Amino acid sequence: MITLYTWGTPNGRKVSIMLEECGLPYTVRPVDITRGEQFDPAFVSINPNAKIPAIVDDEGPLTLSESGAILIYLAEKTGRFLASAGPARYAALQWLMFQMGGIGPIFGQAHHFLRFAPEPVPYAIDRYSKEVRRLYGVLDTHLANAEYLAGDYSIADMATFPWVARHEWQEIDLVEFSNVSRWFADVGGRLAVKRGMEVPES
Amino acid sequence: MITLYTWGTPNGRKVSIMLEECGLPYTVRPVDITRGEQFDPAFVSINPNAKIPAIVDDEGPLTLSESGAILIYLAEKTGRFLASAGPARYAALQWLMFQMGGIGPIFGQAHHFLRFAPEPVPYAIDRYSKEVRRLYGVLDTHLANAEYLAGDYSIADMATFPWVARHEWQEIDLVEFSNVSRWFADVGGRLAVKRGMEVPES
Repeated sequence: MITLYTWGTPNGRKVSIMLEECGLPYTVRPVDITRGEQFDPAFVSINPNAKIPAIVDDEGPLTLSESGAILIYLAEKTGRFLASAGPARYAALQWLMFQMGGIGPIFGQAHHFLRFAPEPVPYAIDRYSKEVRRLYGVLDTHLANAEYLAGDYSIADMATFPWVARHEWQEIDLVEFSNVSRWFADVGGRLAVKRGMEVPES
Repeated sequence: MITLYTWGTPNGRKVSIMLEECGLPYTVRPVDITRGEQFDPAFVSINPNAKIPAIVDDEGPLTLSESGAILIYLAEKTGRFLASAGPARYAALQWLMFQMGGIGPIFGQAHHFLRFAPEPVPYAIDRYSKEVRRLYGVLDTHLANAEYLAGDYSIADMATFPWVARHEWQEIDLVEFSNVSRWFADVGGRLAVKRGMEVPES
């Protein structure tokens, strides 16, 4: 059995989507980051970086954090949503890293400065808003000739979807990015994605 | 033969270090980002995200970008510096993702606001300086009981080293982080790391 430590954030939902897609049984342990529960010593012993998501898999046993690493682990455990070799494998890892190193951190900074910073910081709002738009443009250009980010539906799509799902927080109108919009509707229509996006239950 | 498109940045040097560690023959194609050469259409056709590093491997053939994906590719191509299965594999991927999603983006923002922004932005300087220190603390605590980030020397160390090598840009004194300091001297003493850090030749 897998225990998933998570909260209702894009990084958390990547993993619940993948667990739903694979049909793996799992137990959800909510870590309420609005109350700082990620800093509880019991959780820090699971992830020394004090961030959700993390999993504990009794098979192994294995304790693992970092959403990108968990996605690769679950893909390799099940043999699904990541080719085992060849160009398709590395295309999926490339777009997964594009999410981990680009979309996630930059969209996260945009969320902070557009919605949560206690004071307006015009320079930072401009910086991250522009980079968010550039990244949507990269996605849109790529998806003009690709049904999914790496050919077949993969962990790269699961990683990116929950961040694009917050497009209103980023002040992005998906109408401007028609290929992203088509992909977003397609991925969002999957039953496992709908279920994964509702974890943890509120 | 592998062609490496790179510049003298932490992300570029991760890959040149790995190529040196593996003893793979490679040709360097400098992409001068100070002149905007990453936006040349010829390079954008290699990496649609217009960032170094990227590689073209005639064996495959394969075109790949995102430093984290390239490290995994080279590790799997050679069978080196990343266990093929088991907890050691996922520990290395976890710390690689910690670098890709945490250290890289946050240190990068700190470099921008501490050194390159055309105006002082106190809120952002404070935000990223604090997060840099927190991340050094996570590394330091972990390295108190680990010789390398994931047990044996791995692609996770190669990914992290070139970012720590810019600690002066981050206004960090490594004396405050004695375990990071020990690890930094150890990794930095490797001949392949010294060679990789000099790519491209200036």
